[in-house]
Amino acid sequence: MEQRMKEFAMTDKEIAEFLLSAAVGRISTFGSDGYPYTVAVHFVMQDGNIYFHCLPWGEKMGNIKNNRNVCFEVDEFTGLAIGNPKNPCKTGSKYKSVVIRGTAEVVDETALKEKALTEIVRKYTPQLKDIRIPEENLTGTAVVKITPKIITGKAR
Amino acid sequence: MEQRMKEFAMTDKEIAEFLLSAAVGRISTFGSDGYPYTVAVHFVMQDGNIYFHCLPWGEKMGNIKNNRNVCFEVDEFTGLAIGNPKNPCKTGSKYKSVVIRGTAEVVDETALKEKALTEIVRKYTPQLKDIRIPEENLTGTAVVKITPKIITGKAR
Repeated sequence: MEQRMKEFAMTDKEIAEFLLSAAVGRISTFGSDGYPYTVAVHFVMQDGNIYFHCLPWGEKMGNIKNNRNVCFEVDEFTGLAIGNPKNPCKTGSKYKSVVIRGTAEVVDETALKEKALTEIVRKYTPQLKDIRIPEENLTGTAVVKITPKIITGKAR
Repeated sequence: MEQRMKEFAMTDKEIAEFLLSAAVGRISTFGSDGYPYTVAVHFVMQDGNIYFHCLPWGEKMGNIKNNRNVCFEVDEFTGLAIGNPKNPCKTGSKYKSVVIRGTAEVVDETALKEKALTEIVRKYTPQLKDIRIPEENLTGTAVVKITPKIITGKAR
């Protein structure tokens, strides 16, 4: 696993726990207009991969079809730490930050799609029991899988 | 101003207010490894432009030197709204999401850099009075300006 500033590197276990608990991540794709394109999504982790759902059309779906290389970012800021002698301004944030580079693919296989959507419902609406994904949701919703290639995590 | 899903578009005023109040944004750049690279930063708005500070070296600085086209994303999730009939799963998030595409440049001019750093200190450590940026902070810290080209905002 590569690392950004080694001094503040999260361990693999810390990264895995953070990815399981975080509610929102940001998917970045290459836009055909020559800009990166970043939007927030809900997501789940399954077998070390990231799954999110979205409408089957739209900008990020088009971008992924043109270039599968994506970045997935998750962060959490929990306040400012005044008196940090290592920063020029003696102030620093308390945060966790995980950056994942990987490849995205649209999940077409119905069973896999159903599994991912079930996990998404379980994570975000845990009050729902007996989760079943209706046929129209399987066809009306796209599921994207991101297979991580490089994962880095920092925490302070 | 272009829009993503028009039905939920934020007005220019709503976007401006949200950008002023938000604590964290995510800057996405093009990586030389062929992946987008997204990290969270603190930021301020000045005259319609975005300013953030960071160490003068590192990945995003290198990326910006290679390609100035960036995306800057700000979001806020405030819970799930069960019973949303428009979504296949009848569930939706309550959120604000602003996506800015623009060009980034490193601010070298000392007076501009000092102005941006002063605003950053004012925003994030408002308890500090009589803000003065010491010489070593001006040289030890980089300031990046993003000039927006396309701004879109969605809220539900």
